[in-house]
Amino acid sequence: MLGSRLLEAENDVLLERLSEIVGPANILALSGDMAAYTEDWTGKYRGEALAVVRPASTAEVTEVVAACAASGVAIVPQGGRTGLCGGGVPVPGKPSVILSLTRMTKIRSLDAAGRTVVAEAGVVLETLQAEVAKSGLAFPLSFGAKGSCTIGGNLATNAGGSNVVRYGNTRELCLGIEAVLPDGSVINALTGLRKDNTGYDFKDLLIGAEGTLGVITAAVFKLFPEPTARATAFLSVASLDQAIEVLNKVQDRTGGAVEAFEYMSQPAIDVICRAFPDIRPPLEGTVETGVLLEVASIRPADGRVLQDGSIGLQNDLMEILAELMEAEFIVDAMLAQSERQRGELWRMRESVLESITANGPAHILDISLPLANVATFVTEMDQEAHSLGFQPLTIGHLGDGNLHYALAAAPSYDWSGLPLETAKEVAFALLTRLNGSFSAEHGIGQSKLPVMTKLKEPAQLAAMRAIKTALDPNNIMNPGKLIPLK
Amino acid sequence: MLGSRLLEAENDVLLERLSEIVGPANILALSGDMAAYTEDWTGKYRGEALAVVRPASTAEVTEVVAACAASGVAIVPQGGRTGLCGGGVPVPGKPSVILSLTRMTKIRSLDAAGRTVVAEAGVVLETLQAEVAKSGLAFPLSFGAKGSCTIGGNLATNAGGSNVVRYGNTRELCLGIEAVLPDGSVINALTGLRKDNTGYDFKDLLIGAEGTLGVITAAVFKLFPEPTARATAFLSVASLDQAIEVLNKVQDRTGGAVEAFEYMSQPAIDVICRAFPDIRPPLEGTVETGVLLEVASIRPADGRVLQDGSIGLQNDLMEILAELMEAEFIVDAMLAQSERQRGELWRMRESVLESITANGPAHILDISLPLANVATFVTEMDQEAHSLGFQPLTIGHLGDGNLHYALAAAPSYDWSGLPLETAKEVAFALLTRLNGSFSAEHGIGQSKLPVMTKLKEPAQLAAMRAIKTALDPNNIMNPGKLIPLK
Repeated sequence: MLGSRLLEAENDVLLERLSEIVGPANILALSGDMAAYTEDWTGKYRGEALAVVRPASTAEVTEVVAACAASGVAIVPQGGRTGLCGGGVPVPGKPSVILSLTRMTKIRSLDAAGRTVVAEAGVVLETLQAEVAKSGLAFPLSFGAKGSCTIGGNLATNAGGSNVVRYGNTRELCLGIEAVLPDGSVINALTGLRKDNTGYDFKDLLIGAEGTLGVITAAVFKLFPEPTARATAFLSVASLDQAIEVLNKVQDRTGGAVEAFEYMSQPAIDVICRAFPDIRPPLEGTVETGVLLEVASIRPADGRVLQDGSIGLQNDLMEILAELMEAEFIVDAMLAQSERQRGELWRMRESVLESITANGPAHILDISLPLANVATFVTEMDQEAHSLGFQPLTIGHLGDGNLHYALAAAPSYDWSGLPLETAKEVAFALLTRLNGSFSAEHGIGQSKLPVMTKLKEPAQLAAMRAIKTALDPNNIMNPGKLIPLK
Repeated sequence: MLGSRLLEAENDVLLERLSEIVGPANILALSGDMAAYTEDWTGKYRGEALAVVRPASTAEVTEVVAACAASGVAIVPQGGRTGLCGGGVPVPGKPSVILSLTRMTKIRSLDAAGRTVVAEAGVVLETLQAEVAKSGLAFPLSFGAKGSCTIGGNLATNAGGSNVVRYGNTRELCLGIEAVLPDGSVINALTGLRKDNTGYDFKDLLIGAEGTLGVITAAVFKLFPEPTARATAFLSVASLDQAIEVLNKVQDRTGGAVEAFEYMSQPAIDVICRAFPDIRPPLEGTVETGVLLEVASIRPADGRVLQDGSIGLQNDLMEILAELMEAEFIVDAMLAQSERQRGELWRMRESVLESITANGPAHILDISLPLANVATFVTEMDQEAHSLGFQPLTIGHLGDGNLHYALAAAPSYDWSGLPLETAKEVAFALLTRLNGSFSAEHGIGQSKLPVMTKLKEPAQLAAMRAIKTALDPNNIMNPGKLIPLK
């Protein structure tokens, strides 16, 4: 009792110090005020916090980290709370402060000739896209949560999305970071150099580390010219294997212009159309292997308007698709004829997560495979899933071998009685056999720690622990995430 | 005396063990036999070794590392010995074994549809290029030493080269590695997945770590379709700043097709033409800012032969260059009309290091800058260099902001009397002011440890030491390289 009172007193001292650093308006310590911060988007993860602090600058972050470190209180860095694995909320048993980066929203500089931008961690992805567009440039990272996720969270989880096939993950888009380490020291590497071989690669070590090695406070990103032309189509391809042939052929014919190559299975399309009755399926009848394909080009020649009013790139894509239909790779295709039709295709793609959620309980695997093994996985796993009473609702960023394989209850089955653990084990065994990964782009957080413990190479787990202990000996940076307890 | 005999006896036991592992034919312990391995290309760095061991497999590397670790003997991983910073030879004062990877030359697999290749560390870069070409694909990493450097060395130093402007450094081309850690454990991450967010990024931590955290034994690389058309030109541009405008304009007009954008100053061209009298300057008169420009495309349309016999892409580039001459960005230009002419331009570019060496003593800075600051650096540094009695012979991968700034003796000055340290300090001060880096693509090795100590952020140096100590507590992996002693 006395111990707990002493602890409370110590916590009061810490909260007072934090309040001095960020100002009383930017610290929340009442559970009602904190409610929005202690639970994430999924609703599955909720954690207690001593306080939520919202610093406005890197200097304030440094002081917050130093104060928490001195008190032995954990720090949970948090962005837009759109993560799917519970990485952004505290775990039980460790007194924690949530460090919300949402007030660090400056775009510090934009170099149009050098094609780079420096943005703070709390900038919302869609805001960054919009700001950059004002200079005629594009920041290509994009996915459903773009309106609320922050670039700090994108970096911490190495977020992927729909354009990775062309531009890479967040990692590949980032040229350098500013970060506060667990000891309160600051790494300042925002020069935006394309080449800089001066020691270990901290940028890439912190990207994808889910806040366990430090707090990323700002980053410099590559920018790209805004495409002058786009062409978007929805395809029914004969099989997943043939889809990969289609991808390679379209890449070669367009000079690598594919910006999105998104797989959608018929059951997933059905679920979307049920959840959003105004979304109509783009093709008549049942789709074999649905693919949302988008190509984009900055070449003025590709943006030229032809005599019949069509755009050069769209015309080229139509020709390529016609040839692929002739060769029986593609069964049916619909080319978006207007920006509105393109918007409808993308709205369908981006509604999938909400639609699956609306459909009922489901477990979504975020997995990846070598392209050559995607079809084998889907065929074998679908069979197993059906036999266990599940209905797979699969979509994926097929160009990257990344599937979001959702296990829902098959009609007439009750979710609560289904053997989810068995199904997951079957999936993971298949992934292991086919050189796949149990976590492609959503990260580990809390939710995938058990599978991480089981499937990650012991040598890598040991090396991860060694690095974590070296940089964060007191385990105050986002404890209980990413690294399994021994 | 007794101590030294004991040590010798211990070393004999180790050598016997190593001989068992790799076979007696693959261990060299006589100094005459080892001579080729204990000195690097520059001739500046030479180190004593107990032995050179040449394992043929990852299993043998593991055993060698474990045996050395048990004896407290250091391991110096070595590839083609083409490094420029002394990273591949032993340092004095630490009993060392050279671990030559040159027998690990298997190309383990090539996935043409997935566009990846798995190659062992000892594969020579040019051999990999040639093997991959047999499948109609290309591995784009390339630079002067390609005929003797190994991909293990390329990875350890994160080598750059002439095509980085399009394809990135070795780091960006690598999808995963196999490596032996200092404790003899093996990281096996050769699945070639495009997305795999399962913990800290060891691939990127080991790439560029110059063998100080482990031995990379194999890697999986991205491959690209072989271009169907190329166009190569030599330009005299009005200024370095205008060259960056030219780069952006050519990128935008060709859809990002620039594969090389190499800066050559007139004094560097003069030195090349003196060293190789059969190389003729591509343009008449004095070049303002020389640029070797190459664009390449895989689009069949770009490879089409026009009525006048010219190739589509070459014609397009000619038009773009004509417009840029009209706009007075470009002063003069020469478009290669044949593969022979193209070869001559590249031979000129790739002869630069040999030519500078033949010209006399010189100190070559391998630096990088934000594109916007390149011109300022060159203008100010040239002035300082001349006033100190130096003749700058500057070339560079301008598209990446990477300069190889060579300080040679100006005519009528004697090298031995020139204030090289002062010139280097001036350069480093300028780099610091202009957000540049003192090491762009050659790495740190031994030669840049002093400047590393001086210029690298203390927080990063401390974090590097923490990681090194965590993974290699006994400092047996390539000691004395990359990380300054405290």
